[in-house]
Amino acid sequence: MATLNANYKRIQGSYLFSEIAKRTRKFKEEHPDVVLFSLGIGNTTQPLPSAIIEGLRGEVEQLGFIDTYTGYGDEQGNQNLRKALGEWYQREGISLDTDEIFISDGAKSDLANVQSIFSEDSSIAIQDPVYPAYVDSSVLYGHTGEFENGKYNGLIYMPCTKDTGFFPDVPLGHADIIYICSPNNPTGAVATQEQLQKFVTYARREESVIIFDAAYSAFIQDDSLPRSIYEIEGAKECAIEINSFSKYAGFTGVRLGWTVVPKALVVEGSKSGEVNKAWNRRQTTMFNGASNIAQAGGAAALSEKGQKACHKIIAYYLANAKIIRDGFTTLGLEVIGGENAPYIWVKTPVEMTSWDFFDTLLMKAHVICTPGVGFGLHGEGYVRLSAFGTKKATQQAVASIQRSVRI
Amino acid sequence: MATLNANYKRIQGSYLFSEIAKRTRKFKEEHPDVVLFSLGIGNTTQPLPSAIIEGLRGEVEQLGFIDTYTGYGDEQGNQNLRKALGEWYQREGISLDTDEIFISDGAKSDLANVQSIFSEDSSIAIQDPVYPAYVDSSVLYGHTGEFENGKYNGLIYMPCTKDTGFFPDVPLGHADIIYICSPNNPTGAVATQEQLQKFVTYARREESVIIFDAAYSAFIQDDSLPRSIYEIEGAKECAIEINSFSKYAGFTGVRLGWTVVPKALVVEGSKSGEVNKAWNRRQTTMFNGASNIAQAGGAAALSEKGQKACHKIIAYYLANAKIIRDGFTTLGLEVIGGENAPYIWVKTPVEMTSWDFFDTLLMKAHVICTPGVGFGLHGEGYVRLSAFGTKKATQQAVASIQRSVRI
Repeated sequence: MATLNANYKRIQGSYLFSEIAKRTRKFKEEHPDVVLFSLGIGNTTQPLPSAIIEGLRGEVEQLGFIDTYTGYGDEQGNQNLRKALGEWYQREGISLDTDEIFISDGAKSDLANVQSIFSEDSSIAIQDPVYPAYVDSSVLYGHTGEFENGKYNGLIYMPCTKDTGFFPDVPLGHADIIYICSPNNPTGAVATQEQLQKFVTYARREESVIIFDAAYSAFIQDDSLPRSIYEIEGAKECAIEINSFSKYAGFTGVRLGWTVVPKALVVEGSKSGEVNKAWNRRQTTMFNGASNIAQAGGAAALSEKGQKACHKIIAYYLANAKIIRDGFTTLGLEVIGGENAPYIWVKTPVEMTSWDFFDTLLMKAHVICTPGVGFGLHGEGYVRLSAFGTKKATQQAVASIQRSVRI
Repeated sequence: MATLNANYKRIQGSYLFSEIAKRTRKFKEEHPDVVLFSLGIGNTTQPLPSAIIEGLRGEVEQLGFIDTYTGYGDEQGNQNLRKALGEWYQREGISLDTDEIFISDGAKSDLANVQSIFSEDSSIAIQDPVYPAYVDSSVLYGHTGEFENGKYNGLIYMPCTKDTGFFPDVPLGHADIIYICSPNNPTGAVATQEQLQKFVTYARREESVIIFDAAYSAFIQDDSLPRSIYEIEGAKECAIEINSFSKYAGFTGVRLGWTVVPKALVVEGSKSGEVNKAWNRRQTTMFNGASNIAQAGGAAALSEKGQKACHKIIAYYLANAKIIRDGFTTLGLEVIGGENAPYIWVKTPVEMTSWDFFDTLLMKAHVICTPGVGFGLHGEGYVRLSAFGTKKATQQAVASIQRSVRI
């Protein structure tokens, strides 16, 4: 008899965004004439620049002619795109072989699937608060125990709080696999060289693997902050880096990302190159490559013209972030992130819970945010604001908050 | 200490296509002036019809304007595409709810990942010869034992031979999960109503789940042959169907597929709808939706104009299949498939091995095929030919075979 994987019974409902939707819907029903502003979701809103549209369009047109039509490509991605990414890293002083870079359909898939190449009894460390996909995929891959008192047994939680500078500190005990994310989602904090060095030192001592989520790295303006974990000495021996065109080039809907698995990365019982080969085997067996149209768009985004255009859009979102930062600072609230990241993490006033402050912003200012507690217990007492809206809507939202919320 | 998943040490090298490439390369080096024809790989070659190009182009252009730009969509796919697929099934007399249809980036990913929602100790049945992705993903998900004497322990092999009509018969013992594929890859045979009914009856008696790979269903011209497993009574209670735009609409490079998980499908210990919910959870946790550009192309392919154009291209490939069939039949060889499928399965002459006949076709006729033994032990003594080339190259290849191969 076939039976369901028990991990699917263990996993908790993903109620955060549905609860936000429920409360928003209820408010709308009761106030049908009110216009709501969303600073909630990390979804891009700015159109793709012409340099990228040209790249996408060019590939679409080529698919219409027999001489330029393309079918299956390499599962690992087109050589020219992998090479362009290698050059992109090289400009940051990081040397990677083309076959250390794997093109994917986005960071989320890879962040989830990459843990499957490691032993099933691997212990996994994640920060708290945390991007839910790390946790949920750990549960579905069987890397956790039961859910009790708001936590999964077996999962190692690294608090990410004021005490730790809103970026996690290394685990107290041993962890086999460690997820970290800089710029951080949800706190908007960015790890310093020293903070990342501490993780690399820990991972090399403990023979752990770091899964480094760099999806927001393009938002880092301060050149003293690392944009890649490979800026840290020794990181190639212990870290996998996952990145995406979603926030860099507005590809949330186009779907394109990449994963770096250095050949120097070794784990217990494996030789140099074997982890790289395992990911290669996973991808060639269970994935058939990213869309050739999306890949052509990615190549266009990495061209000189494309990068200039992407940086302009990032500057636009960072200007929104400043509007949000300034708005909450003026209200006298503690504000984290938003300078080198698209997320702003705000301490709720007078010890309000995340959901109470969510309700206040919704009902008084008609602004939707994301309650911090939805990302984990240590997110309680915070809310996350996103800079991915339009400038006008961001300005209106912040003006509405300043007009109507008294603290 | 992190360690590699032991399944990655258990899995065998995927040497088939690299061995073909190696022998081909060697021949080319020794005969630099010879022009080779490939009837080997199942990769599409015909350009996309204008109806689909318009759909793709329309979405690309929309991404360039703020009012029509789209970011993240639903992980399960755009509602309009899911609805259009529901109507597509309805025309075949099959009623599905929209939330029973999940859009993906292609059949390969889903065929591999779908088994992960079932218990880890599930026994898996696959045919022999077989599309390698079923086997390799079973190994990587830990559903098999060690590889011994050409087989994985724990895997249930269903011979797919002359005795069984080149479509497998149900397993002799019990299997929890059964992969079947019609039109068949590699044999090109198509299951009859009776053959599929036998699997559904088996699965309902044994409380197994059928994973039905329908990626080549659009090639079925004979209306008495089922194009979907849901044409069989009782299939919704026991079968998941996976299909793709790759061969239907030439999307091998564009990447788009879909999976049907009926709510009526139940397994031991689950209630109605729970398997559907588990797949929904898998996809929302570990996948972020197919490219919105590919999805717009898929919607265009399902339009009246799009379908007409797709059927024209399928007729083109089937005409190639007839050329190949006729060519080998004239030589006096036994030929299977190619009438309702893009693959032709040819018995080698005079008890030659698959690789010997591969070498003969390469060296004498300068034609590349795929040795049947590469798909499994029961593929020995056969080769697979693909109809996905151009008409001209197919004609030239077959003429060259007829000219130079004497049996």
